[in-house]
Amino acid sequence: MARGRISRLSVRDIRFPTSLGGHGSDAMHTDPDYSAAYVILETDAEDGLKGYGITFTLGRGTEVVVCAVNALAHHVLNRDVGDIVGDFRGFYRQLTSDGQLRWIGPEKGVVHLATAAVLNAVWDLWAKQEGKPLWKLLVDMDPRRLLSCIDFRYITDVLTEEEAHEILQRGQVGKRERGARETPDVDEHHVSTEEQMLTEGYPAYTTSCAWLGYPDATLQQLCSEALKDGWTRFKVKVGADLQDDIRRCRLIRNMIGPEKTLMMDANQRWDVPEAVEWMARLAEFRPLWIEEPTSPDDILGHAAISKALAPLGIGVATGEQCHNRVIFKQLLQAKALQFLQIDSCRLGSVNENLAVLLMAKKFDVPVCPHAGGVGLCELVQHLIIFDFISVSASLKDS
Amino acid sequence: MARGRISRLSVRDIRFPTSLGGHGSDAMHTDPDYSAAYVILETDAEDGLKGYGITFTLGRGTEVVVCAVNALAHHVLNRDVGDIVGDFRGFYRQLTSDGQLRWIGPEKGVVHLATAAVLNAVWDLWAKQEGKPLWKLLVDMDPRRLLSCIDFRYITDVLTEEEAHEILQRGQVGKRERGARETPDVDEHHVSTEEQMLTEGYPAYTTSCAWLGYPDATLQQLCSEALKDGWTRFKVKVGADLQDDIRRCRLIRNMIGPEKTLMMDANQRWDVPEAVEWMARLAEFRPLWIEEPTSPDDILGHAAISKALAPLGIGVATGEQCHNRVIFKQLLQAKALQFLQIDSCRLGSVNENLAVLLMAKKFDVPVCPHAGGVGLCELVQHLIIFDFISVSASLKDS
Repeated sequence: MARGRISRLSVRDIRFPTSLGGHGSDAMHTDPDYSAAYVILETDAEDGLKGYGITFTLGRGTEVVVCAVNALAHHVLNRDVGDIVGDFRGFYRQLTSDGQLRWIGPEKGVVHLATAAVLNAVWDLWAKQEGKPLWKLLVDMDPRRLLSCIDFRYITDVLTEEEAHEILQRGQVGKRERGARETPDVDEHHVSTEEQMLTEGYPAYTTSCAWLGYPDATLQQLCSEALKDGWTRFKVKVGADLQDDIRRCRLIRNMIGPEKTLMMDANQRWDVPEAVEWMARLAEFRPLWIEEPTSPDDILGHAAISKALAPLGIGVATGEQCHNRVIFKQLLQAKALQFLQIDSCRLGSVNENLAVLLMAKKFDVPVCPHAGGVGLCELVQHLIIFDFISVSASLKDS
Repeated sequence: MARGRISRLSVRDIRFPTSLGGHGSDAMHTDPDYSAAYVILETDAEDGLKGYGITFTLGRGTEVVVCAVNALAHHVLNRDVGDIVGDFRGFYRQLTSDGQLRWIGPEKGVVHLATAAVLNAVWDLWAKQEGKPLWKLLVDMDPRRLLSCIDFRYITDVLTEEEAHEILQRGQVGKRERGARETPDVDEHHVSTEEQMLTEGYPAYTTSCAWLGYPDATLQQLCSEALKDGWTRFKVKVGADLQDDIRRCRLIRNMIGPEKTLMMDANQRWDVPEAVEWMARLAEFRPLWIEEPTSPDDILGHAAISKALAPLGIGVATGEQCHNRVIFKQLLQAKALQFLQIDSCRLGSVNENLAVLLMAKKFDVPVCPHAGGVGLCELVQHLIIFDFISVSASLKDS
């Protein structure tokens, strides 16, 4: 049971000097220092439990997010945890629609990153009070209660609360009775989606081999090690220099062989026509997707790129910098992506991600989370495991 | 001539308690305290000139924008003013694509508001050094030089630099030879657009009568005064309560009579289906436009609303919270607005507004600036006068 009154919110600016080794470097973020604004919530309950929430940042600017967290703090302090999670939609709305603060958003950029950090801490606190990991809290929650955490404002033209309820009801039926396993030699009627997650985990890919700032020798060494470790899906950063991309993609495709999966990531480097031309030149390396080919705000641009690359067998993936559910709604409406990448720290925490997972299910688009930054893997695994067990029930294209 | 080296950047958090009187109140911002983050640039030149730039805010959160300005300061300090304006596109790109800071945007929300304040100060300084008001600096500038201030990244699928040059070339021909006057009794071939602006000014509308928080008596009194003062275009805030809106719209339409123009502004209050239904009920009061019917991020939503309201003779206006040129590009592509409202402090200053004015011209959509907040009228008049003289040459629907 949720309990206690929020007695303290503290926030820290935590930075790691990853730019020294070129870790995390891509075509647009050449010198990132992987960082986080780190929120800690304390209550007056005697259990001593604290809620920890973060948003991921790249170094400079973390102090701006910290400042925004402090600007939101008055909405959180002295509130009963039970009241917050009892009307979580209302609380989400209160944070995102503050009559003065929303002007500097709304629901985007710094204030929304700060909102994510605060709400991530609330969810962490709630899950701890319930004695469950977050994914289990979500999976066990009554569908009506779950939906009461979502602000449907601006998405009802695509997904009403009733439609969302039907999706969750269908997930309820499936989540204990069957898993939608793609492995044909296992009797799927005897393994529930939850059991499958607990025994086998969720599949992942690695980007760690092929950051843009790595020399070829480093790329080869890391790729070789990743193959030994059993990785089957590899992502390579592209977009800064075409000849360089051709050389690096050839290198990695030759190392992983024709069967394993290769994805490419341009980190918003291109304009729309440039994206289409560039990817036509990289098509020979058979990427599953091109990620972030252009501005994350360009829904119609992503739609045009998707249409142009479909005949080449290349999908479009995006989401890590899509700033709210309204953008995701339109990406789905416009058939602008074939792989939807939620982010646990850019959207308004679990609340807004639930809305996006449900919309993705309605449009039958697979969700492949963005992760890899400070805390992102640790956070997003809860969302994607919930998605598999209660919503999508599929590992296809995950 | 641009001169000197930026020796100091200071930024202040300035707030006015407008919420005490309900001034500025609307359906989403019920208690705004009109405020600004105020940037002052000083140089080591002996002329003693300073550049002043602001971004408008609503009270809380101004300190977050101030923090973001300080995060950008290292890009500005110790730079030669001549170097900055000599490669203004490059400088714009440097501020908006900082490899670490862009993560908390990019080009949106707090960091983009801060960018606007800094760049507004640079433009102010440059104009003062040239001894001209900003509009005149823009009007007199060689088209190639003007275009070198614009970052065309992410908009080349709609407007290339060459197309923009053609638009400006056509404006060059017109700006001294003819004005596109709609007053038929004046020989339009003998009045240049610049002369027309200098003698007659640019038409405006008033929102001051009908903020949502005003009681009917205040509305009636202010409307009566505005009519005496010669105003012919009136905007009323709507969206919180339908019956209330019907009463207030009837009141104001009765006062201004059938001929004068009435606009309505919902400040993002509705979902897409709700916007269409609500406006069907208000159509009898013959609004020229409904402003911000839904989320500023919802391009496809605005397109759907535009399509539904066209048969009722109601246009859609939006822009004050459209966060960058990529959003405006899509609103134009999708025929999602009939009136484009630039904002001098939300877009990346003059640089990005130039891109939007040129795109609007290409799509033949009239530009009606957002103003009325702290400093907005003072800033945006320069942009719209430049637009009339050098780009649109039209007052139709302005």
